[in-house]
Amino acid sequence: MKNILDRNQDKADEVRKLLREKNVVMVNLISSPGAGKTTLLERICENLGNKMKIGIIEGDITTDRDGQRLKKYNIPIVVINTEGGCHLDSHSISKVLDLFDLNALDVLFVENVGNLICPAHFDLGESFKVAMVSTAEGDDKPEKYPMLFREAKAVLLNKTDLIPYTNFNLSNFKKDLIKINAQIPLFEISCTSGDGLREWFEWLSEQLDIFIKI
Amino acid sequence: MKNILDRNQDKADEVRKLLREKNVVMVNLISSPGAGKTTLLERICENLGNKMKIGIIEGDITTDRDGQRLKKYNIPIVVINTEGGCHLDSHSISKVLDLFDLNALDVLFVENVGNLICPAHFDLGESFKVAMVSTAEGDDKPEKYPMLFREAKAVLLNKTDLIPYTNFNLSNFKKDLIKINAQIPLFEISCTSGDGLREWFEWLSEQLDIFIKI
Repeated sequence: MKNILDRNQDKADEVRKLLREKNVVMVNLISSPGAGKTTLLERICENLGNKMKIGIIEGDITTDRDGQRLKKYNIPIVVINTEGGCHLDSHSISKVLDLFDLNALDVLFVENVGNLICPAHFDLGESFKVAMVSTAEGDDKPEKYPMLFREAKAVLLNKTDLIPYTNFNLSNFKKDLIKINAQIPLFEISCTSGDGLREWFEWLSEQLDIFIKI
Repeated sequence: MKNILDRNQDKADEVRKLLREKNVVMVNLISSPGAGKTTLLERICENLGNKMKIGIIEGDITTDRDGQRLKKYNIPIVVINTEGGCHLDSHSISKVLDLFDLNALDVLFVENVGNLICPAHFDLGESFKVAMVSTAEGDDKPEKYPMLFREAKAVLLNKTDLIPYTNFNLSNFKKDLIKINAQIPLFEISCTSGDGLREWFEWLSEQLDIFIKI
């Protein structure tokens, strides 16, 4: 296992170096199955598609359904099928980077395989990770999956429109999150109603500026 | 990987043999994080606790929160922390079986780690697997995670009370599920409202009879 992670890290460092040279920010988006990653990417394409040049890598076990959903935005998308694998790794990312014109991109979103565990262990060479969790999953996720919430640069709490119909307790969620990662910004959003998305888009735009100026 | 799976299979066969001898049915419950596995076990303890002798193995990455929730039912529970591992395996199950009085059990529920992928690959020596999915996760899960839906003996579609507030399409879900596994029984349930639980409990009781008579 250590060997696998070491080799992954070497390749991730290579990917990160290449993306820096090309001024491309890579965002590694991690969540459970069905937390709303693809819907978030739809909202990003609709709202930021004319402000920044976006590319997407879609990680999936076996289908290209998420990729199909995003085709309508006319942006470069590459689907990686892991053939049963439960996470992406830096080697698979490195291989598909050739399929993008990196000179024509500002930001490359990676939709990781739906899984809160292994994707947190594998550096893809991203600029930063974003953890996404849906209110319907319950308020206990930060404590149960601490590695992801420690590794991420921001947390998106999606499906806030469902809170009235669930036993999700926002103050318990925040209390647990702060214990794991005291400084992490939390965005409460609904990708269906649009609530909270403006603040998240602003933060994302700032990060892009910061990372490109470094 | 093949080596790991082969060794897992050998130990799973041993576990299965032991449980047969003891007339204990083991149910391996698999879902995404937050689909409702622990709440289902609460409903099972409340409704079936006086009809069958229940034991529970709680698989979790790092905490014993789910185990704590179930303590009130006064049934034997053992928590396995995988220390970051994304699934249980037959070796960890075999080790904790000694902690149960198997002669005093009818059924042993295993709450696997929240993950739709790797748990489907690892036989624990269970009598059968049950796949659980929440309506809030979307209707595309059978096609996206086919192995689990192929392996399972039943599917529980939980959180049907949330359908009116989501874009979940029941007929698409069923259509995809039938393509993967035409014969599999589907139970539409809500562990919070109680809808559909009676049918699932009846099916479960029948399975216990069938497995013990074999």
